[in-house]
Amino acid sequence: MGEIVVTAPYDGAEIGTVPTTDQAGIEAALDAAYGIYRNRASWIPKARRITILRRTAELIRERRQALAVAAAREGGKPLRDSLVEIDRAADGVDTCIEQLRNEAGSVIPMRVNPASSGRIAFTQYEPIGVVVAVSAFNHPFNLIVHQVAPAIATGCPVIVKPAATTPLSCRAFLDILYEAGLPESYARMVMPETHEQATAMVADPRVGFFSFIGSSRVGWMLRSKLAPGARCALEHGGVAPVIVASDADLDSALPRLAKGGFYHAGQVCVSVQRIFCERSIAQSVAEGLVQQARIMTVGDPTESDTDIGPLITHAECDRIDSWVEEARASGASILSGGGKLSSSCYKPTIIYDPEPGATVSTQEVFGPVICVYPVDNLDEGIERANSLPVSFQASVFTRDLDTAMRCYRHLDGTAVMVNDHTAFRVDWMPFAGARTSGHGVGGIPYTMHEMQTEKMMVWRSDVLN
Amino acid sequence: MGEIVVTAPYDGAEIGTVPTTDQAGIEAALDAAYGIYRNRASWIPKARRITILRRTAELIRERRQALAVAAAREGGKPLRDSLVEIDRAADGVDTCIEQLRNEAGSVIPMRVNPASSGRIAFTQYEPIGVVVAVSAFNHPFNLIVHQVAPAIATGCPVIVKPAATTPLSCRAFLDILYEAGLPESYARMVMPETHEQATAMVADPRVGFFSFIGSSRVGWMLRSKLAPGARCALEHGGVAPVIVASDADLDSALPRLAKGGFYHAGQVCVSVQRIFCERSIAQSVAEGLVQQARIMTVGDPTESDTDIGPLITHAECDRIDSWVEEARASGASILSGGGKLSSSCYKPTIIYDPEPGATVSTQEVFGPVICVYPVDNLDEGIERANSLPVSFQASVFTRDLDTAMRCYRHLDGTAVMVNDHTAFRVDWMPFAGARTSGHGVGGIPYTMHEMQTEKMMVWRSDVLN
Amino acid sequence: MGEIVVTAPYDGAEIGTVPTTDQAGIEAALDAAYGIYRNRASWIPKARRITILRRTAELIRERRQALAVAAAREGGKPLRDSLVEIDRAADGVDTCIEQLRNEAGSVIPMRVNPASSGRIAFTQYEPIGVVVAVSAFNHPFNLIVHQVAPAIATGCPVIVKPAATTPLSCRAFLDILYEAGLPESYARMVMPETHEQATAMVADPRVGFFSFIGSSRVGWMLRSKLAPGARCALEHGGVAPVIVASDADLDSALPRLAKGGFYHAGQVCVSVQRIFCERSIAQSVAEGLVQQARIMTVGDPTESDTDIGPLITHAECDRIDSWVEEARASGASILSGGGKLSSSCYKPTIIYDPEPGATVSTQEVFGPVICVYPVDNLDEGIERANSLPVSFQASVFTRDLDTAMRCYRHLDGTAVMVNDHTAFRVDWMPFAGARTSGHGVGGIPYTMHEMQTEKMMVWRSDVLN
Amino acid sequence: MGEIVVTAPYDGAEIGTVPTTDQAGIEAALDAAYGIYRNRASWIPKARRITILRRTAELIRERRQALAVAAAREGGKPLRDSLVEIDRAADGVDTCIEQLRNEAGSVIPMRVNPASSGRIAFTQYEPIGVVVAVSAFNHPFNLIVHQVAPAIATGCPVIVKPAATTPLSCRAFLDILYEAGLPESYARMVMPETHEQATAMVADPRVGFFSFIGSSRVGWMLRSKLAPGARCALEHGGVAPVIVASDADLDSALPRLAKGGFYHAGQVCVSVQRIFCERSIAQSVAEGLVQQARIMTVGDPTESDTDIGPLITHAECDRIDSWVEEARASGASILSGGGKLSSSCYKPTIIYDPEPGATVSTQEVFGPVICVYPVDNLDEGIERANSLPVSFQASVFTRDLDTAMRCYRHLDGTAVMVNDHTAFRVDWMPFAGARTSGHGVGGIPYTMHEMQTEKMMVWRSDVLN
Repeated sequence: MGEIVVTAPYDGAEIGTVPTTDQAGIEAALDAAYGIYRNRASWIPKARRITILRRTAELIRERRQALAVAAAREGGKPLRDSLVEIDRAADGVDTCIEQLRNEAGSVIPMRVNPASSGRIAFTQYEPIGVVVAVSAFNHPFNLIVHQVAPAIATGCPVIVKPAATTPLSCRAFLDILYEAGLPESYARMVMPETHEQATAMVADPRVGFFSFIGSSRVGWMLRSKLAPGARCALEHGGVAPVIVASDADLDSALPRLAKGGFYHAGQVCVSVQRIFCERSIAQSVAEGLVQQARIMTVGDPTESDTDIGPLITHAECDRIDSWVEEARASGASILSGGGKLSSSCYKPTIIYDPEPGATVSTQEVFGPVICVYPVDNLDEGIERANSLPVSFQASVFTRDLDTAMRCYRHLDGTAVMVNDHTAFRVDWMPFAGARTSGHGVGGIPYTMHEMQTEKMMVWRSDVLN
Repeated sequence: MGEIVVTAPYDGAEIGTVPTTDQAGIEAALDAAYGIYRNRASWIPKARRITILRRTAELIRERRQALAVAAAREGGKPLRDSLVEIDRAADGVDTCIEQLRNEAGSVIPMRVNPASSGRIAFTQYEPIGVVVAVSAFNHPFNLIVHQVAPAIATGCPVIVKPAATTPLSCRAFLDILYEAGLPESYARMVMPETHEQATAMVADPRVGFFSFIGSSRVGWMLRSKLAPGARCALEHGGVAPVIVASDADLDSALPRLAKGGFYHAGQVCVSVQRIFCERSIAQSVAEGLVQQARIMTVGDPTESDTDIGPLITHAECDRIDSWVEEARASGASILSGGGKLSSSCYKPTIIYDPEPGATVSTQEVFGPVICVYPVDNLDEGIERANSLPVSFQASVFTRDLDTAMRCYRHLDGTAVMVNDHTAFRVDWMPFAGARTSGHGVGGIPYTMHEMQTEKMMVWRSDVLN
Repeated sequence: MGEIVVTAPYDGAEIGTVPTTDQAGIEAALDAAYGIYRNRASWIPKARRITILRRTAELIRERRQALAVAAAREGGKPLRDSLVEIDRAADGVDTCIEQLRNEAGSVIPMRVNPASSGRIAFTQYEPIGVVVAVSAFNHPFNLIVHQVAPAIATGCPVIVKPAATTPLSCRAFLDILYEAGLPESYARMVMPETHEQATAMVADPRVGFFSFIGSSRVGWMLRSKLAPGARCALEHGGVAPVIVASDADLDSALPRLAKGGFYHAGQVCVSVQRIFCERSIAQSVAEGLVQQARIMTVGDPTESDTDIGPLITHAECDRIDSWVEEARASGASILSGGGKLSSSCYKPTIIYDPEPGATVSTQEVFGPVICVYPVDNLDEGIERANSLPVSFQASVFTRDLDTAMRCYRHLDGTAVMVNDHTAFRVDWMPFAGARTSGHGVGGIPYTMHEMQTEKMMVWRSDVLN
Repeated sequence: MGEIVVTAPYDGAEIGTVPTTDQAGIEAALDAAYGIYRNRASWIPKARRITILRRTAELIRERRQALAVAAAREGGKPLRDSLVEIDRAADGVDTCIEQLRNEAGSVIPMRVNPASSGRIAFTQYEPIGVVVAVSAFNHPFNLIVHQVAPAIATGCPVIVKPAATTPLSCRAFLDILYEAGLPESYARMVMPETHEQATAMVADPRVGFFSFIGSSRVGWMLRSKLAPGARCALEHGGVAPVIVASDADLDSALPRLAKGGFYHAGQVCVSVQRIFCERSIAQSVAEGLVQQARIMTVGDPTESDTDIGPLITHAECDRIDSWVEEARASGASILSGGGKLSSSCYKPTIIYDPEPGATVSTQEVFGPVICVYPVDNLDEGIERANSLPVSFQASVFTRDLDTAMRCYRHLDGTAVMVNDHTAFRVDWMPFAGARTSGHGVGGIPYTMHEMQTEKMMVWRSDVLN
């Protein structure tokens, strides 16, 4: 059995290893999980699941600082934000408990016509089957919680493959689950040795639900490989657009836009990327963002005052640089940033008016790069925002009721923020890509819903006539 | 047995009679209704109730014109608006059907801790008991529908006392119900001979639910007389306040405000009465409303171009005049109107800046009178709007997001309209007075909810461990 | 200012004192509470309320043992059950938090017809006003939690009057709230010196919501005194009926029935009181209950093996004895018990076939007394169960699907348990008396719902056409 | 352009033709639909959609008899049942309207912690994109309604491919929609000339939602071809199992089982196929079903007294015969039927105890064939019922509460009927295959939910702090 050496993206230091999982290991994990699912006698009762999750949340809170430092080291997100990530994770486990305690099925109307006479019908929830989760690096602890905790909560055995760059936080979460009382066979981490093995695992007929966070290209490809009967949730990116109307309160907007674009070096699927400004204010917005970028500290994520840490790999840092250079070459103004600070860190970058067809205008940058585009009017801004096949979170800055409503109605997106950046998220809200940006609805209550079958009982009785 | 002679408020012409109900008749109605309620074998199955209501809606639509003319004649609301009233009534019956077909109870979570282990729990709806409804004159057909149709839908036998001035529309609705298949014992109209008899009927221990639309004074007094076990819904008025911010679009606001204040001669419980305007625009608003009042046609409600009909009685017309005169005497400017056109019709009236303590500033006018108050700022407007013990519908006109939100948050009210008048209502929305403005939540789905008990079954079984 | 000396019901020992509240104190409490309610600037934000409640739940859990002993001493409920009471109380506070985090309003459909075009509408919750809670002795800690915690959660300032016999647990809960960060002005305990003062407090126009747990007679009387605008919730008793079909599994049923009848010496509003058995098994049931009664330990509530403690007062013990003697005198068989063990403890008592009109057959005993009635068939059992004007929790024991369904459908009640006793309750389920048994719906989520106004915003915009 | 000649399955008579759709036609349909979807200005407002659907339901009801005869002729379902189908279709359109009028989004909790402070959030619905629906023959009118009406209701342009055998009913429904006011570009019927064209259409990137009713093999294969961004709903079969306990009321059960197995010659995806009976009653059940089969009239579907019509094609009739012969050859008893009545009609067939591995025990028969298996006990019955990878509707016949609950809990299925057959369905209930039996949740309200995106607005305002 091999192993993966995990290094800190900031400085390349080795920080741990995890074993890889060979074919037999994957098979064993699938077999055990499927065995549990097919044998109701081995299901964990809901009350016991709640007990386990309560203890899980407690343990996370107890180890907050250590988990945050480890996550920051492994994933590169600044410590301040990593602490928030751990707090959110604990809160997410609470949300799982709340859902179990508060949502238990529904009553289906009967006796409303002759066909339905003499009946009462209601539903209860059942686990949908074995969950296979493939996760991403950018929130190494909380994404795992988002994919694994709902599975445990709903009673689905789960197999999770973290990003190869950030397996340690995943490992830590599973260990906490075990410590909290979860039998290990209910949640297993695997690190397949090859892409083929990973794909085969996802495509296995024993899989009931496939949860994926990552690139659109890989996600939809894996969807096409699923066995009959497998459902999926995919979470990709949105190349997030923002409209800034000429009446916007820029004092409030600028720090929010900078936060939304540079948070975790832009490595967020709803990161602010494309800002369409009414022409009269476009340059002010761009210059204001330059000021914002200037005051941000880029560097070691474990330092408490760091605003922006490294990219997850040197290759990513290089890719971003090449995209920025492409924009520059085709005539865009690079108002700030536009270069590597080190092999792992990229300067927070503001690009003014790149070509609509430029890579930075059409592909998810996943780096600390914000593009500002002047537009003649709101309609042009909306049209250009909607010109890509994605649809995720969008936002508008304005003081005007009708402008806010127009943008809400006309922007492609599953969420439109008013006077806030596109990366706003709380873990209980629906979080879903539409069009090519994703499949299903994320957010803990919604994920739990997707991981369950609503099983109806229809009770016929002559007494009910 | 006596009879009530019904006259047209506009011209005093006799348009019909209804018999009064003596004590024996009231007793018989209560007895029959209670007998049905206490004998489940006599309950009408839900599917049959739906069939009856479907036919009811059809019959209303078939007789739309005749019902509207009769309602206009009897109640004085202009024909154009009476046609809308009849359409809304039919639609309201549809809403009853939809609720029956779509809402059937809920599942209560069990098995989340040891105390709830081994159980499944769900609810179904049952009728709450005999409904006694006391109604008002201002929507003589649709208010009856709001009070009686939910009772029929939920399976509650109902006894209804319409306003003494408008019993014919009530009679017409009950006759349609019977024609649609409802046994007469399920819905009875009564016209008690005395207030004492009416009060005794309301206070009878056989009453399960008391539905009242009318004055606050009478409503709360009757609540205090209810027998143990009787529930109630009360709908009174709100002396409705409006905030107009200096940035409001007055072209849009003025006709809406005039409509909201003069619709049915202001005889609506959410009629626009108190408009608080930022000082810079207060006179423009008042003058704009004068223009609006000027173009309104006051007169015969059965004419198709009449905007404003008569008050329901000559006494009401006199009362309104006295209130306006009181305001004038204490220094308010009467910018338009301010006098009777006839013994039944009152001129649409705009009063500028009456005293805060004036009757028109503190009591529900229930007539075609709008008061405009200049205020120094929004906070003053909100504070003055909130200075009465009422709370119903309010509104704000502004272009600004924060202003809209501030008014929504800070105005007393159960509904705050943004850029619309306070009398906005659709029959499926919640419509409720808070504080002294009412009890319970009106609106057809909500009334149906209140007229039902949610009866839970908790099924314990060792199989569920 | 006077004081109330609190004594242990079991042995009369003094265990504490609380000051009485004079008229000025009541006035000050009402004034402070109303002042908070009328000044939105003084409202505690929802996030802060959650923080306070989280800490409250923690503190309850930390002090579990001490709180349970104190409650057992003060109220006489055996320690084992008092520990459960404290656990439930902490869990109830959790439920408040969950509701705040998960329920935030609703969207009202618009744009479905011309009248609703161009609009979006949604609601948010607001506190309903000042809550005055009058509580009962039988769950001295958890009832206070049921009445006070929802008020705090929803943002309503609350004034609570505990039972005169059990103020110490109430005091302890309020002190925990303060320690958790609640400003004292938000929750005040009062002990009026006279009934007149208490009634006047309830009837005060500053009261927005009156919450009452206690006798039906007092509850409905107080409802009639409420000021205009005040809402109420009343929780009385149900003289709870049980049907035992001849096919029932008696091995399972008998201990449940005994538990349901003798738990806390029957001082529970849904205590098993009237058991209607098909004739063939009626004597077996009665004798089985005698066996159950025999093995129960009656005595000191602070002992860990006590099953049944004292009645709350000597007068209550005497009253129960007189009711049993009345039944005996009119020919009923007292199969076990039927006498006082001491001035405070009553023997668990099984009465066979008392007269239908006997006090024990028609009034809530609120003592350790179970009546068993043979009936010829299920329909007779149902009819006799339904013969009183009450309606709360009922139950049926049977193996048969149709029998269970028939009893569910035909028994008066807001809950029908299948193969469980009538006193089953978890704190998140609806718990409501219908008919004269109560008003409104208890259970923490439901109480929170009643303590809030759903405030609608209707946003009209031409953009929405 | 070619054409498809539609023949009556019963007698082969030509009953109509429909043109095939060439590649250009498919392309044009996709292009028009996608153009509408991408241009919000061309969306039909909800109020207008309601108006169109109301008229649609009216027209269906007006033409009930003609539509039923045509459907019976084309699809072979007996007239009596076809009339029910048309009635259900009209009712289904009503359900669409009800959903539009009653479900409009949800409020998302905010301000529960610092991260969510200062915000209000709510959702509204948007159409998910272009719907491509591929339908089945067995309910030629109502399945189309199930797939097309929700699309129209939610505002999704739709392209529908009916079964090649039953396009006329689809054509009739679309024509009614047009007559009711729907622009033709919103709903198009296509009949691709080749499977490749059909597959390419399904796989087109312009497709937002793919709705499929048909075989599991084809459904999941098409799922794997979907373009990135396309969602799907699949409805396959369940080889439906039934448990009959020894205490079941056979007088009630037998006609229901026969109805559930022979309705529409078993051509229903939830048709009763596998009946597991406790051994003591297995032969009685089998013989009782033989009696039931005997009294059923097989033949011309347009005759009013026909119980069972033809199979959809001669090839299907032959396939069924070969499966029955395979069972016979391996030792099963064919207690009744077991042969063709004509080239299109198959005798209602009861097979006793076929091998667990026989085709009739493992594959969906989709013909008038019921298998009865004796089992030693309920657990064996449940285990064998669960032995296939399908999960759809199941049922149990028993008088016993615990048996009913055990079967509900332990049977694979999304619905378990108690004392009813597996083919019970009303069109507003959830109707979903789990495991390989389907994807998504059918039933009109659920389909509408899946065809919509819930679009959130998060409104941040300092006023909300």
